[in-house]
Amino acid sequence: MKSLYFDKELTLREVLMPRRAPGEALIKVLLAGICGTDREILKGYSEFQGIPGHEFVGRVVECGSPQWMGKRVVGEINLACGHCSWCAKGWGRHCPTRTVMGIVNRPGAFAEYVTLPEVNLHSVPDEVSDQAAVFTEPVAAACEILEQMIITPGARVAVIGDGRLGLLVAQVLKQAGADVALIGRHGWKLDLAKSWGVRVLSEGAQELSASSFPITVDATGSPRGLGEALRLVEPRGTVVMKSTFHGAANLDATKLVVDEVTLRGSRCGLFAPALELLRQERVKVQPLITKTFTLDQALEAFEYLNQNSALKVLLDMR
Amino acid sequence: MKSLYFDKELTLREVLMPRRAPGEALIKVLLAGICGTDREILKGYSEFQGIPGHEFVGRVVECGSPQWMGKRVVGEINLACGHCSWCAKGWGRHCPTRTVMGIVNRPGAFAEYVTLPEVNLHSVPDEVSDQAAVFTEPVAAACEILEQMIITPGARVAVIGDGRLGLLVAQVLKQAGADVALIGRHGWKLDLAKSWGVRVLSEGAQELSASSFPITVDATGSPRGLGEALRLVEPRGTVVMKSTFHGAANLDATKLVVDEVTLRGSRCGLFAPALELLRQERVKVQPLITKTFTLDQALEAFEYLNQNSALKVLLDMR
Repeated sequence: MKSLYFDKELTLREVLMPRRAPGEALIKVLLAGICGTDREILKGYSEFQGIPGHEFVGRVVECGSPQWMGKRVVGEINLACGHCSWCAKGWGRHCPTRTVMGIVNRPGAFAEYVTLPEVNLHSVPDEVSDQAAVFTEPVAAACEILEQMIITPGARVAVIGDGRLGLLVAQVLKQAGADVALIGRHGWKLDLAKSWGVRVLSEGAQELSASSFPITVDATGSPRGLGEALRLVEPRGTVVMKSTFHGAANLDATKLVVDEVTLRGSRCGLFAPALELLRQERVKVQPLITKTFTLDQALEAFEYLNQNSALKVLLDMR
Repeated sequence: MKSLYFDKELTLREVLMPRRAPGEALIKVLLAGICGTDREILKGYSEFQGIPGHEFVGRVVECGSPQWMGKRVVGEINLACGHCSWCAKGWGRHCPTRTVMGIVNRPGAFAEYVTLPEVNLHSVPDEVSDQAAVFTEPVAAACEILEQMIITPGARVAVIGDGRLGLLVAQVLKQAGADVALIGRHGWKLDLAKSWGVRVLSEGAQELSASSFPITVDATGSPRGLGEALRLVEPRGTVVMKSTFHGAANLDATKLVVDEVTLRGSRCGLFAPALELLRQERVKVQPLITKTFTLDQALEAFEYLNQNSALKVLLDMR
């Protein structure tokens, strides 16, 4: 089958069809999304080698349990052992021996076919189009914040970064009742958020004085964003780190301690709440699609992202 | 009166007696303790100029309200405005216009006399000696962790750093029911903790594998300790930052996000719980006193700390 393959460099190549293990399903990939993490992987993040890609929607073409056959599905990306103390707590996403599709020791979705354990699959409701379903994983990552902390009605939250993730986090927190300000540097991206009723502020705006939000979220994908999130947070406030970037972060330790700030790392979320938000159209995702490429054009898609200020770029394998 | 004075360098000098403002008490300092923060101030932390010192026990010699007259007291070190939204929430310790005795724009206790608002004072119970009472502020800082998070019985906590603060934090968490391991590099300090029934481990011990404690506390006072606290913490665990050091911290951002670690800055605590722990002798403090100097010998005391692996050094003004 055709696939993208990363081994020090990214190439388009023919590889063997994956074989499903017992309990797994073979899935024909329909659409896949390119994520910031994929681009970090190309820079060396997680030392991944193989087929990248973890945002996808597909159709089951082979499986053990008949109820999945032919179903349109999305799949949780962490493959847990199922037996350790983390899995017993329901935290398979932190299982120490887990693999992660397209990120850690497991082939990903930038290919014609992919395999995943049936326990990882979620059936996509008919109301959710392929173009919306492919956003399940990033919407789940945004929803993870709601699993980690209580957002009281009207809670003032600054979301920093007007990229894909920032636009999703802002919407997810807003629909949960927060008073969200999205902070970015791209007029057209902020305008998009504004059209959804999200309050927006340009980076460097006067309103953005130090220590002015009880909750800030760094969704910039860069170390710079974390510094700004820490600057903007009030004493005793919380900074949510949503960015996965390759390297070390430099933090103002004095501010953290003296202001008793809480910093919370936040990663993958559960798929069920994300699919429900998509079904109810409480989060808008299709306006985030900047461009769609075929798998044959996949290298161009990455090049396009390097050259342009895009939001979501998709690969279409249908 | 005689005092220590910091203005780019530390000197012993004669200064004017402080005058108490309305609502304040004039206090004869009996004993004062030298803290890690004082030594950071000498390196430039908080750009402080004036009389340092914030750990003390004294006796009220002049005040407006007769009930304080002649009382042996300790004093909360943050001087809040009393009117802002932070003060209204009871968080005067985070009042944005606060001064901090001996640290931010307010003379400290390394002098014969000091003034403080009466609202900052706590009467020292008769059972608590001067030598114990002078530890109220650092014990309160250790107790602050109990105000910030729930420590369930038997919770496994690694306290990193066998200095003054680490030895206090380990005791405070142990008496609260935690299963504490104190990690240090000084045999004699670890032996002291062991004599109190605290489990101790040498830095680099084999048991200290990565991701092995749900809660870790950095009490080393150095950026190195924070890295170790982050290495030792489990996924979804909490790192408590108790160290105030001058400069930036370098953090493994990937671990923070991927393991969804929570980092909590932790600073000053309330005095009442600390005085109660001292009254009940649930925390041992007197074995921490390495040496006591007179105010005349105060410069030698700082030199002694530079040259020796000491625990607490006191200045006696009685």
